[in-house]
Amino acid sequence: MSFVSVNIESAADSPVKLTRRALAKQRTRERVLSAARRLFSERGYEGATIRDIAQAAGMSTGAVFASFADKTELFDEILTADYEVIYAQMVQAARAGATVDEALLGLFGVAYSFHLDQLPLLRATIAVSWTRTEAAERSARADLKHIFRLIGEVTQRGIDQGQLKSGIDAKLLAEITWDVYVANYRRAVFDGWTVEALLARLSDQLKVIFAGARA
Amino acid sequence: MSFVSVNIESAADSPVKLTRRALAKQRTRERVLSAARRLFSERGYEGATIRDIAQAAGMSTGAVFASFADKTELFDEILTADYEVIYAQMVQAARAGATVDEALLGLFGVAYSFHLDQLPLLRATIAVSWTRTEAAERSARADLKHIFRLIGEVTQRGIDQGQLKSGIDAKLLAEITWDVYVANYRRAVFDGWTVEALLARLSDQLKVIFAGARA
Repeated sequence: MSFVSVNIESAADSPVKLTRRALAKQRTRERVLSAARRLFSERGYEGATIRDIAQAAGMSTGAVFASFADKTELFDEILTADYEVIYAQMVQAARAGATVDEALLGLFGVAYSFHLDQLPLLRATIAVSWTRTEAAERSARADLKHIFRLIGEVTQRGIDQGQLKSGIDAKLLAEITWDVYVANYRRAVFDGWTVEALLARLSDQLKVIFAGARA
Repeated sequence: MSFVSVNIESAADSPVKLTRRALAKQRTRERVLSAARRLFSERGYEGATIRDIAQAAGMSTGAVFASFADKTELFDEILTADYEVIYAQMVQAARAGATVDEALLGLFGVAYSFHLDQLPLLRATIAVSWTRTEAAERSARADLKHIFRLIGEVTQRGIDQGQLKSGIDAKLLAEITWDVYVANYRRAVFDGWTVEALLARLSDQLKVIFAGARA
């Protein structure tokens, strides 16, 4: 359930044997991450300090800093872990869809289902995405490349199967789709929309966005 | 330069005569707003406290609370003032455009020009828009209605002039356009894009979004 699983053989080539000490360190990280996830969800990114997180995890702030350089790193770690969980499911959903629209609704449906279960964390994530440093933005975009590659595969298959015209600007179509996908979360946050409602809207949006691209 | 200017006659019906005391109160508000604008721009919404703002304005926190109920109200007041400044210009630009695309690029161009001059405040605004209360969201959406009405006028004119098909979902087209308009600011924030670069991108996006709607 992670990017690593794509390269499962190379992972098997170098099995990681954890010493007792490394195991303890890993458990500490997990305790911190679990407490941080809860507090970021409850209070947002700005509202949760490292001191709060340390207290919730039952350890000193020093112990937290032994595992994470700062709050940004802690937050990014949570997002990366989440992303690794859903990416494999998004790939499956994208491949299971018979048409371009089905494939896109499938892959974004995985994301909607996942994030609607932890909406406060998603709100914090989108808010932080506008105020983070350039370095953090670069890192987030590197992660997004996998999603955009996946959307690219879907549109390429649409071209190959004669659903979409060749010569379309697939990158631009993918980016517009991404923008509306993210903006739709506002309906979940403030209007209580369900996954089904979000997907119905995304389906309407895809009809508009791909109207000029249909073969 | 405000919504009020649309109803300039009714405004003239009830001229406001400020007493010396009311004038002093207004000056206090303006000092607070000016300090708040600067601090929100420098530190973001979360990073600027009422205490900081009071200090920067050279007054007590009590004096600030005499004018504003809380930080949210202070922030909203700044945004509303900005919005009133640009709305009249957006109307003019929308009416000056000969085609639907020109009109939309004109009205969003006004907004891009304005916000690129105070990008840190815009970042804070978008970030806050994801974490604010439902009441604040409702209030923000009420302001946005004017913009959506304006976009609606542009598309209706496009239909009347035979540029767009009748029977299109003008609301959905406007909402998709709005979503990409907002998302494009990310390029200004993290990639240093100019107004011209943002408008070139929006022009490409409009070609996609309106492809199925052209007559």
